[in-house]
Amino acid sequence: MIDRGFHHDGSADHVSTLAPDPGETVTVFVRTPRDQRSGVYVRTTPDGEPHFTEAVIDRETDHELWWRADVVARNPVTGYRFLLTGPADPANGNPYGYRWLTARGLTDHDVPDATDFRLVTHAAPPAWAGAGVIYEIFPDRFASSGARREAPQWAIPCDWGDPVAGTGPATPRQFFGGDLDGVRSRLDHITDLGADILYLTPVFPAASNHRYNATSFAEVDPLLGGDAAYRALIEEAHRRGMRVLGDLTTNHCGDIHPWFRAALRDKDAPEREMFFFTDDDLGYEAWMGVPSLPKLDWSSERLAAAMEEVVRHWLRFGLDGWRIDVANMTGRLREADLTHEVARRIRRAIAAETPDGLLVAEHAHDASGDLDADGWQGTMNYAGFTRPVWSWLRGPGVRLPFHGVPAEIPRIGGGDAVATMRAFSSLVSWRALTSSWSILGSHDAARIRTVCGGDPALVEVAAGLMFTLPGTPMMFAGDEIGLEGAWAEDARRTMPWDRPETWDTRTLGVYRDLIALRRGEPALTVGGLRWLHVSDDAVVYVRERAGERLLVLAARAGHAPVRLPLGAAATALYGGADLAPDPAGVLTLPADGPAFHVWRLG
Amino acid sequence: MIDRGFHHDGSADHVSTLAPDPGETVTVFVRTPRDQRSGVYVRTTPDGEPHFTEAVIDRETDHELWWRADVVARNPVTGYRFLLTGPADPANGNPYGYRWLTARGLTDHDVPDATDFRLVTHAAPPAWAGAGVIYEIFPDRFASSGARREAPQWAIPCDWGDPVAGTGPATPRQFFGGDLDGVRSRLDHITDLGADILYLTPVFPAASNHRYNATSFAEVDPLLGGDAAYRALIEEAHRRGMRVLGDLTTNHCGDIHPWFRAALRDKDAPEREMFFFTDDDLGYEAWMGVPSLPKLDWSSERLAAAMEEVVRHWLRFGLDGWRIDVANMTGRLREADLTHEVARRIRRAIAAETPDGLLVAEHAHDASGDLDADGWQGTMNYAGFTRPVWSWLRGPGVRLPFHGVPAEIPRIGGGDAVATMRAFSSLVSWRALTSSWSILGSHDAARIRTVCGGDPALVEVAAGLMFTLPGTPMMFAGDEIGLEGAWAEDARRTMPWDRPETWDTRTLGVYRDLIALRRGEPALTVGGLRWLHVSDDAVVYVRERAGERLLVLAARAGHAPVRLPLGAAATALYGGADLAPDPAGVLTLPADGPAFHVWRLG
Repeated sequence: MIDRGFHHDGSADHVSTLAPDPGETVTVFVRTPRDQRSGVYVRTTPDGEPHFTEAVIDRETDHELWWRADVVARNPVTGYRFLLTGPADPANGNPYGYRWLTARGLTDHDVPDATDFRLVTHAAPPAWAGAGVIYEIFPDRFASSGARREAPQWAIPCDWGDPVAGTGPATPRQFFGGDLDGVRSRLDHITDLGADILYLTPVFPAASNHRYNATSFAEVDPLLGGDAAYRALIEEAHRRGMRVLGDLTTNHCGDIHPWFRAALRDKDAPEREMFFFTDDDLGYEAWMGVPSLPKLDWSSERLAAAMEEVVRHWLRFGLDGWRIDVANMTGRLREADLTHEVARRIRRAIAAETPDGLLVAEHAHDASGDLDADGWQGTMNYAGFTRPVWSWLRGPGVRLPFHGVPAEIPRIGGGDAVATMRAFSSLVSWRALTSSWSILGSHDAARIRTVCGGDPALVEVAAGLMFTLPGTPMMFAGDEIGLEGAWAEDARRTMPWDRPETWDTRTLGVYRDLIALRRGEPALTVGGLRWLHVSDDAVVYVRERAGERLLVLAARAGHAPVRLPLGAAATALYGGADLAPDPAGVLTLPADGPAFHVWRLG
Repeated sequence: MIDRGFHHDGSADHVSTLAPDPGETVTVFVRTPRDQRSGVYVRTTPDGEPHFTEAVIDRETDHELWWRADVVARNPVTGYRFLLTGPADPANGNPYGYRWLTARGLTDHDVPDATDFRLVTHAAPPAWAGAGVIYEIFPDRFASSGARREAPQWAIPCDWGDPVAGTGPATPRQFFGGDLDGVRSRLDHITDLGADILYLTPVFPAASNHRYNATSFAEVDPLLGGDAAYRALIEEAHRRGMRVLGDLTTNHCGDIHPWFRAALRDKDAPEREMFFFTDDDLGYEAWMGVPSLPKLDWSSERLAAAMEEVVRHWLRFGLDGWRIDVANMTGRLREADLTHEVARRIRRAIAAETPDGLLVAEHAHDASGDLDADGWQGTMNYAGFTRPVWSWLRGPGVRLPFHGVPAEIPRIGGGDAVATMRAFSSLVSWRALTSSWSILGSHDAARIRTVCGGDPALVEVAAGLMFTLPGTPMMFAGDEIGLEGAWAEDARRTMPWDRPETWDTRTLGVYRDLIALRRGEPALTVGGLRWLHVSDDAVVYVRERAGERLLVLAARAGHAPVRLPLGAAATALYGGADLAPDPAGVLTLPADGPAFHVWRLG
């Protein structure tokens, strides 16, 4: 048993509110084995100084004690952890009688504050975000309405069935002609699947198919159908109870954006201050030095005000929130670090239009320093979800670049995969974790099918993790039918609507079933998470809420049977048969693999 | 071997400069076993985005390769780490052929950025600080000049030999009459010992013996001899090549300080904004709710300017730097967190008077979030040094409160002690670590002698760690002669100058010898640190610089002999006999304990 029966997390069973007001007293609960009958304290650090409060036993069950203590959310981010004292019991893994429980787990020695549990008084992410399932669409590739539009000068027109050019000069120029009416015409597919949040990569005019080099933030690209098609899509989505998220580059714009053209033309132009002009060869700062992506200077009030108006305009237009491109770089340059200020301004701009609007940051590695800061409410969790899941489930023999790292994806054991997840999740609040996106692939990454070496059984395990671990599932259109792709640009393939024989209907069923499971079981969205077993080939955890317990087993291969003293029968909800405990209350889980199972513990 | 022969730290052998200018290219070196012949990369995150550079082999030795790479100090704090790729070799502890080396050590899975190595472009701490040995003096208790002064109203006059009242109303009121001329008269003792930095707790007038409740920051308490005695002491210390540090409460002042009196008297007083007046029973914010310590409001420019002038005045007077009391709380209250701004202003105020002045923060638990931020240049390292050393060396059977935690000091194994040290040290820059104070005790803590159950052999081990691990040793006056004390106030005992028969001359010799060793061996101040062996009862490490390697063994008890394939003879520098390697190059270290040994590897 991981953490030896001690447990706390930020879920509703353990914390009275995840959206405390400043100064509010929050009740927290921590669970211990029944033999820990005293010596439970909560430590907070109000205004920087440690403070301890002794917890009291709130209730007991056959298996554990629930302790209760009050924590005052005195600061915007209030860290807390538990101290557990008592007699040492080395034979049972308690060598000193002195232990801490933090979000990183149980430890026998002092650890820094960074992994303390967190209460946050900043505006909470909206509940709909964490409860939803996101479907990502790259507009040029998802679906075409068939409207005939003249390809612009930059474009290389392609037929829908043409292969994508994953590398080379044609990559950003291939123009397949997907559009927003096309998306609207295919909403049934998404609705049938069960996803309820649409995330569209940029729809602004730009001289590329990815549109991250916007030439305007004021209108929708006419090639996609313009404002009218965007409005019609949003309205139809809303009619179906879906939400729609936009994608905004706050770090840069395209080099033919009028702001940049004006700034370039005239050193005295008011737009000049919106960029970073330099004396080097390029003459200005650009994203990763790419000339077409001049970096925006958020120290300019003109820029900040203009971007705030962009944020607000499209919310008034109908969007439910924003995904911010390379949020990790936005506002950062040399000695300047305005990222938190930028995030705060955007969040407030959103709140001014849409009180329950969502703000999520693309942050492709470690976002922990930027969350819980009154700005980004979640991130695209490549670091704490995608990378460990890929590494655990990478098909044997598959060789793929590891998303920006000069290495191939390793094939790591379940223990290291879970350690990675916990290393990242322990640095952010529970609400930031659950509002962050669990991603198996995106327009910026390989496809999970390819990572798994084409094995649908491994894809099922991956999808199982995505839909049952804390975090908001985000699937890239096409993952559900088994599209492949070995890296970002290679993954931006068209949806083969006209070739249904190429669809992997097993995987489609897996996605549909798992989404239905998630939507039907609140424990999977707002429930806590306890890791019960971790080995190279299998991991087992419980999601639980209000007395309901779901037991999850994910196995990448056949493995030794896992025996757990859970003292309850298990009713199969996904992928397996019912299980009965032995007379000692022990459940023996199936040892096959790859396999993914969910049971309800009764 | 810890970290399997991979090593980097911030020391001079591994980093071309610890004080880079913004934008400067810094050369870093990383060491690997000889079989890692490719696949070494340094990762930085300039402006928030990961970036990899392949390292090249700089040179090789019989045992290892030294790799070189450039890192641009693009941001004020530039994090970097190493990626190590290549064939997996599970039998030799390399399960995936994918490893990271961060300040936390070698890991087989992704870890967050927090433990990246750090380059910092903010003003560097002065070299003299890290090279020195600090001697802390609590003026009322160190030495009296014999001057007869009338005890003030608050005071309970005591004779020098009276016991201290560790608890109760008499604790802050006992007045032993130590003074600054007394300190000056005893400088020979400190000089003979080898310490070269005096740190005096507050000398300002106050209605207590500890003087943390200052009634003025403008003059030295006449009870201590006033400004003249302070000046004479500083001048004499400087004449001897010593430095002198002051102690300032930036978080609060005493409730009879004229600022607070004026603020309290008149709601329209300009001093009103310097404090936090409230509607609660006390009527104002105070340190830990203690009425005599009203908290200062750094959002007041009047307060900030006044405190800056205090800082500067005493530097002009002669001080070489400041220790800031409860720096962790300074500027923090509810939604306000001005701590970094306060620290920055104080650091700049110091620099304006004394370019190589030192600024060190008292931060009794985890200072990592507050260092490397253009303010505090180091901390009193209770969290990353005192607590793990105490816990490792606590005498068997000793029961003592654990410095602010509702637990007794546990007795933990060497592995957990070292893990604690690394957990904290890995979150700050090397220069912040080496400018932080390694403390075995202070006026705010138990005495090491008492923690060790009175065993001078354990004290020797503790002192050995203090004088040979990275960090600036800070000893509390009296530790060197074996004074005892079970908690802060109990530890503030008078120096028994007139009872030399009570001095533990063995311990005095230990301190004198270890200080001499440290002052004679640059590897102990500016050298790197490699952990070679960790077990419950013994830890072994190397400090090294410019080809000079010192091998250190600290053992709290007898233990299995440690065998290390170091391929060199060891010449005893402290505590042991010379050692010769066996034909295979293996050194077998002595197995006795408690014991502390230092050898030079030849």
